[in-house]
Order: sequence, then structure tokens, then C-alpha cells
Amino acid sequence: MRKKIDFNSDMGEAFGAYTMGLDEEILEHITSANIACGFHAGDPMVMRQTVQLAEERGVAIGAHPGLPDLMGFGRRDMAVSPEEAKSYITYQVGALTAFTKAKKLQHVKPHGALYNMAVRNKELAKAIAEAVKEFDKSLILVVLAGTEWVQIVQEVGVKVAREVFADRALNPDGSLVPRSKPGSVIHDLNEVVARSLKMITQGKVTAINGQEIAIQADTISLHSDTPGAVQLAKTLKEHLKAEGIEIAPIGTFL
Amino acid sequence: MRKKIDFNSDMGEAFGAYTMGLDEEILEHITSANIACGFHAGDPMVMRQTVQLAEERGVAIGAHPGLPDLMGFGRRDMAVSPEEAKSYITYQVGALTAFTKAKKLQHVKPHGALYNMAVRNKELAKAIAEAVKEFDKSLILVVLAGTEWVQIVQEVGVKVAREVFADRALNPDGSLVPRSKPGSVIHDLNEVVARSLKMITQGKVTAINGQEIAIQADTISLHSDTPGAVQLAKTLKEHLKAEGIEIAPIGTFL
Amino acid sequence: MRKKIDFNSDMGEAFGAYTMGLDEEILEHITSANIACGFHAGDPMVMRQTVQLAEERGVAIGAHPGLPDLMGFGRRDMAVSPEEAKSYITYQVGALTAFTKAKKLQHVKPHGALYNMAVRNKELAKAIAEAVKEFDKSLILVVLAGTEWVQIVQEVGVKVAREVFADRALNPDGSLVPRSKPGSVIHDLNEVVARSLKMITQGKVTAINGQEIAIQADTISLHSDTPGAVQLAKTLKEHLKAEGIEIAPIGTFL
Amino acid sequence: MRKKIDFNSDMGEAFGAYTMGLDEEILEHITSANIACGFHAGDPMVMRQTVQLAEERGVAIGAHPGLPDLMGFGRRDMAVSPEEAKSYITYQVGALTAFTKAKKLQHVKPHGALYNMAVRNKELAKAIAEAVKEFDKSLILVVLAGTEWVQIVQEVGVKVAREVFADRALNPDGSLVPRSKPGSVIHDLNEVVARSLKMITQGKVTAINGQEIAIQADTISLHSDTPGAVQLAKTLKEHLKAEGIEIAPIGTFL
Repeated sequence: MRKKIDFNSDMGEAFGAYTMGLDEEILEHITSANIACGFHAGDPMVMRQTVQLAEERGVAIGAHPGLPDLMGFGRRDMAVSPEEAKSYITYQVGALTAFTKAKKLQHVKPHGALYNMAVRNKELAKAIAEAVKEFDKSLILVVLAGTEWVQIVQEVGVKVAREVFADRALNPDGSLVPRSKPGSVIHDLNEVVARSLKMITQGKVTAINGQEIAIQADTISLHSDTPGAVQLAKTLKEHLKAEGIEIAPIGTFL
Repeated sequence: MRKKIDFNSDMGEAFGAYTMGLDEEILEHITSANIACGFHAGDPMVMRQTVQLAEERGVAIGAHPGLPDLMGFGRRDMAVSPEEAKSYITYQVGALTAFTKAKKLQHVKPHGALYNMAVRNKELAKAIAEAVKEFDKSLILVVLAGTEWVQIVQEVGVKVAREVFADRALNPDGSLVPRSKPGSVIHDLNEVVARSLKMITQGKVTAINGQEIAIQADTISLHSDTPGAVQLAKTLKEHLKAEGIEIAPIGTFL
Repeated sequence: MRKKIDFNSDMGEAFGAYTMGLDEEILEHITSANIACGFHAGDPMVMRQTVQLAEERGVAIGAHPGLPDLMGFGRRDMAVSPEEAKSYITYQVGALTAFTKAKKLQHVKPHGALYNMAVRNKELAKAIAEAVKEFDKSLILVVLAGTEWVQIVQEVGVKVAREVFADRALNPDGSLVPRSKPGSVIHDLNEVVARSLKMITQGKVTAINGQEIAIQADTISLHSDTPGAVQLAKTLKEHLKAEGIEIAPIGTFL
Repeated sequence: MRKKIDFNSDMGEAFGAYTMGLDEEILEHITSANIACGFHAGDPMVMRQTVQLAEERGVAIGAHPGLPDLMGFGRRDMAVSPEEAKSYITYQVGALTAFTKAKKLQHVKPHGALYNMAVRNKELAKAIAEAVKEFDKSLILVVLAGTEWVQIVQEVGVKVAREVFADRALNPDGSLVPRSKPGSVIHDLNEVVARSLKMITQGKVTAINGQEIAIQADTISLHSDTPGAVQLAKTLKEHLKAEGIEIAPIGTFL
């Protein structure tokens, strides 16, 4: 059993006059921030502000690059080639890095459809890892725990953080149940807490078909836009501390 | 009289299926490339390819950030605030940097309306310089020779390269005659060569009203999309060599 | 004194995953809806849904075209040519019309910076009016009351509705005090109601410098995103009814 | 054997400062123009100009709506829902219609990936047809000849034109061989002419595997961006005339 776990959350997903999420509140409770980079969400003003908020609170900063689909919030699969995906990652990771004081990120976590496509598409997964490696080989790439993606990234030679989702149902193969399907998002706070604890402390989780599957987590994803995310973070932190597990940025233990 | 001069050209202005300019040809004749960063032109695929072309030819690389106006090619003034301009510069400069092998640029040259607005607007000029300084204080900012912009950048503490245009007419105050006005672009190759030589070797140029004005040039802008740009570059180079002037990237002598 | 007045509100300003305004609530209290057309805000899904909401409630539908500046919510001046503005209007008005059952709109009201630029720029104002006339010469163009824009539209041969703002301060020449200036938006509900009543029933309003100016109103703009807009609409309606003034769509009395 | 055939071509695919295709030349040789609507290509200025060019030459006008993917020129599959596709069609068809003198189109032809996805996806094909029907039930929808798409459109109650491609290879099921595969585009002019004649006069074509398949054509697609398209159009027209076949817009015989 790991003695440390990271709490991550997507943020900086506002755009121009549009707001999204409760970044300031959730920042108090996480250790790693995945900041949108202007493709699926975020804009340069929002990026600067969000990076600054995270830096002020000592939260580790990562890029959250997405597909060039603002209208679909990066949630719609697009038939981008591995070369295109690679260049989109390079572009967005570079752009976000420029806003940090250190000119250095902790991690990269692909967003939405890009993340889900990487779970299924080896060439795409490899291209994303190569983009990260070429930009800064000390960066950590956050990928879905329990999937082949983990090995692909390791083979490219990039450090990997295995991510689990506090409130998302899983298929027996470890992939996320798509949001379009019933039961994909777990809304009951107690169940979310119980699942999260079991994943982190026992390395196990119950898939949507009732089957118990093994899962190894380095970081747990909390939603900044889910009502109750703050409450979830607090409750989870208390339970984990009681079990002797420390909440810390992935960069400190991977 | 300066013994060195830089030849720069805007490039990487293709977008998706759309082509623009003769980058490969003009790259043979310049020492510094201003590469579009995805706002007014360019996309991540084009940026990677253009950076690679410049690196292969040993041409120094700079960012050519523009306004978020692809439909207007960044040529239309927009009432962006200094804070917005600053963040747009940070974003685009970071994005382009990520595509270079060295993860380092030589210079930044604002594009189109952003460049022209900076000539007239002190606060904007200052914000752009601050963005450059915060990102990498060793970068050179390319600005219009003979304008107040030069001093503003120097006061911020950023190295400045004074740019002259081979084929653009000037107002008596040193600003560019807008493209919308007759006579703004000089099409006669002999005249373009003669003006360029006079600016570089004598530090003088004739404004559109016939008045002779003083001008100090560190770099001369050649258009990759002007028919005859390659011929101009060749002819100019020959004449300059004959005068004992070396063509070299600004980073080697500023 | 006019016996009828229209209540209009901007709406349909959501975009993709981003929400904006309280369209459903404010729709209960207005007679004309200005629906965003995808340039400064709105997208095809949002447009379809918003048109349907307005049709269900019997609220007259108009297009609310803006500048191609989603990142700036169409609030930043852009140096578009009259020809560009004309084509942007044609495009957006056509797009919105397609979502209506009747394939016909009641009116067009330019948004944000396009509206403000039309107040100051005769050529732009004329181009917008010509776009409306060419598309459907029975449409009403909503313009700022008390400005030269009214005459320009009439000269082109387009019906005009003079608009006043319930909660915006005015310069002595009738133009809106820009949002960037202090006092530009009036937040006190009682004052907003009192000003509105005076404009509608007496044809007078107090400018920001204290001067009383004449103003003729056909429609009053209520914000869907101002807290208290619904309360304002209700209160205003009661007072107007007590004065014998009917609230009705501009298309029924112009 | 049909005695009439339509020649169609995609056009108006420029965007801002970017040019594309040889619209003016190809317009001399076609009877129906498919004009881009601003999503995959085209902008309001280009649309107005292209509509005007087509009107001046008496070429029938249709909308050529695409996916919201300018960077990919609408050629990349996107997982848009049928509802999204429907609204994207409504929006773009409405926008283009607004630029025509008659405020009426002849036809609608989906572009690129949207076209190819409709060949494979019944729900999407149905949604597109419904968008066309709701907008104007007299419009003709241009679809790929020899596919199930033909029936789907007819069942919705929309007039259908069966399209064949002069220079594209076909799979045995009648679908287009994707551009990414070798042999997808036929470059030999003689072969393109021979294939076209056989399709139009005999209702037959040879698939990429050598198999002869039946095909019924109402309109033949000529590319405005293929070198030799003008020559192809001329040659084809001569041969068809010699066979007693008239070239006419689909609207005149469907």
C-alpha cells in the first residue's frame, strides 16, 4: 500500500466572459492543479490568473491540454492524427509553462476526449507521451489507472501517474463509463468516499457490472464543478489521514 | 555606421489546409525568422514544421505573436487592454518556444495590428515588453525603428532591435503608412533596394512627403509573400557585402 | 407621450458547456428577445433552444449579431470595415432566422462594441442598416435613442426602434457611458425604475453630468444577467400599467 | 439513361487572407455551386462574393455546410450528436441563404467528414435531412450515389440528388475510398473522363477492387482545387453533348 496520494482537479476552464467551476475553493483542498490551455477551455487571461492562484496556495501546476473544440468543451472525439495530437500537446504545454514563475510544470494531463481516446488508441497515446518527453523529460504524464496507457507512457520513457476518479463508474477493463451512459457519474457522496478509500487503501474498486477489479492509484481526480467536491475532498482527506496516508503532489513521491 | 545587419521575415503563416508565403525559399536568404503562433495565423502543425525548417537552415527563431483575429489575419486594430495583450504575448511566445530544440528563442516581433498599435500606445508597448521580460529577459524585442517604442522597451529592461521595412513607405514621424493608403507599399525593386541601402549604410530614409528622416536599423524586414522578395534579398545582400556590411542574426550582435 | 413600450433583453448568450444569463426567467417579463448569433456568444444548439423558448412564450424574436470576438464577448472595438460589418450582419441574421418557425424575425439589434461603434461611426451604421434592408426590408433595427444613428437608419429606409437602457448612465450627447468608467451601470433598483419611468412617460433623462436631456423610447433594454432584472421588469411593468402604458413588442406598434 | 446531368463544385473555401481554389474559372463550367458556410471554410465576406459570382454566371447556388473544424478543414470525423449536426446545418444553411438575392437556395451538400459520416451513420443522415426539411422543404439534398443515405433522405421527405465523383475511387459498397489510402484520388485525366462518362451514360463504375458496380448519378462533382478540373469539365461536357446529354442544374430536372 502506498503511503502517499495526490489530489488533482481540472481548473482554469473559464473563457472570456464565461465562468466555470469553483477554482478558488477547490484549490484549498488539492495538491495538483490541471490547468486548461486554451483549446477546449481557458484563455490567456484565465491561464495567468489560475496559475497565480495555484502558486499562491502552493499547489503543483500541470497542463490540461485538450482538443481544438471549444464548442464541444473538448469532450467530443475527433479523428486527429498522432502527429496532430503531438503538436497540440506541445503547443498547449508550452503556452501554460510560460505563465508559471518557475517556467516549469509538474505534470501534463490530457483533457476529455483526448484522454479517453488515448486510453483506446496506442499510437495517439504514444504521440502524446513523445510530445511531453520532447518538451521536458522530467514531467509526469497523468493517465488512467489500470489501462494499457500506463505501459505505453513508460515505454516512451516518461514518468507516469496513475489516476483514479472519485465519482466516475468504471468498466471491467478499467476504462471510464462514458458520460452519455446511465450511472457513469456517482452522485452519492458517501459512495464516492467509500470507493475512493477502497481504491487508495486496498487497490481495489467495483466495476459497473459488480465485478471487483484491481487498481493502483497515484492521484485521485476531484471535480471543481461537481457540487460537493469540496465536501468530498475534506471528508476523504480526514479518512485518509486516519489511515496514515499523506496527501502530497505527485512530483514529491513519483 | 553599423557593420552588421539582420534580415528578418515573417513566416509560418499557413493554417490547416491553407498555405501562405514561400517560407522555404525566403529562409535561404534571411538570418532571423518571425514565426506565427496560432492567433492571427499558424497552427501547431505549421509551427513545428516551420521551426524545423529554420533550425535546419541555421536561421535564428523568433515568435511573431498577433491578435486573436484569424479572420482578419491580425491586421485589424482591436481594443485589447494592456493586460490582455500581455497575456496574449506570454501564451504565444511560450507555445512557439516549446517547438524549438533549444527551448529558447532569439526574439519576439509582434504582428500586424498589434505591432502598429504598440507604435501608438505606450501602455500597450510597455505591457508587451513586460511579457517578454517575464518570460525570458534575454530575448530581443523587435520594434519599429525611429519611434518612441524603442525607448519604452529599453526602459522596461528588454533588449531592442530596431526594424526597418524594405518595401514600406514611412510617415515623417517614422511610423508606417497604413496599407489602406496609396503608396504604402513600394513595388519597384530598384527603389526598394536603394531605400534599404540608404537606411542601413547612411541611417537615412525619405518619408512619403519627401522629407529625409534619420533612422537606425538593426534588422530589415523582408516579406515572404511579396513577389520578388527572394530577388530583393539576393540583390540587397550583394550590395551590402560590397559595402563591407555582414548579414547576421540580431542575437549575434545586439 | 407614447402609449406603448417594448421590453427587450439580450439572451441566448451561452456557448457550448458555458452558461450565461437567466433566459427562462427574464423571458416571462419581456416582449422582444435579442438572441446571440454565434459570433460574440451563442452557438447553433443554444440558438435553436433559445428561439424555441421565446416562441413558446410568444416573445418576439430578433437577432443580436456581434463582432467575431468570442474571447472578448464582442465587447472590444475592432477596426472592421463597413463591408465586413455588413457581411457579418447578413451572416448572423440569416443564421438566426433559420431557427425560427416563421423563418422571419421581428428585429435586429447589434451587440456590444458593434452597437457602440455604430453610434460613433456613420459609415458603419449605414452598412449595418443596408445589411438589414437587403435581407428583409420589413425588419426593425434597434438603435440607441437620442443619437444620430436613428436618422442614418431612417435614411437607408429601414424601420427604427429607439432603445433606452434601464440601468446604464448616459453622456450628455445621449451615448452610453462606457462600462470601463465609474458610474456607468446604475445598481440601485429604485433609481433604475425611476429613470425608466421618466424616460418612457416624460421623454426625459438625467445625464451623468446632471444635465436633463430629451429622449424618445420605443423599447427599454433589460439585462438577463443583472441580478434583480426580473424584479426590475415586474416593478416597471406595474408602474407603467398604472400610467396607462401597454407593454408590447415593437413589431405591433412601429 | 438520364438525359440530363448536373456539374457541381465546392467553392467559396477561402478564409480571411487565405485563398483556396479557382472559383472564377470553374464557375464557367458548372451548373451548381456548393458554397462553404464559415465552419470548415469560408467567411461572411467570401460568402457574399462567391454567391455574387455564381449569380452573375447563372450557376445554381447550394450550401456546403461542414463541421466546426477550420483547423482540419472539416475533414476530420468528430463525434457530433445528431442534434448538434442538425443545428449546425440549420445555422450554416440559413447564413448562406441570407447572401442570395432570391433568399433561396437550390440545394445543400454536406462537406468532408460530415458527408462521409452521413454515409455510415443513419441517425446523423436523418438529422441532416430533417434540418434541410425544416428550413425549406423544396431544397434538394446532395448525397453519395449508391448508398443507403439516398433512401434515408427520401424517407424524411426531402428531394435527393445522387452525386458521383469524377476523380475519386470507390469501394465496392459505393462509399468513397478515404483520401488517406493510396489510389483514392484518380489523377489521370483520360481515366477520370472515361469513368465519368461510364457512370453517367451506362450507370456503371469500376470499384477499387476491379468489381463493376451499378451507380445512378444526378450530379457529378468537379473539384475547384484539382489541377485540370477546368480541362476535365470541358472535355466531359463535349463527350456528354455528343451523347445527347444536357448539362443542367439539378433544380431543373429533379
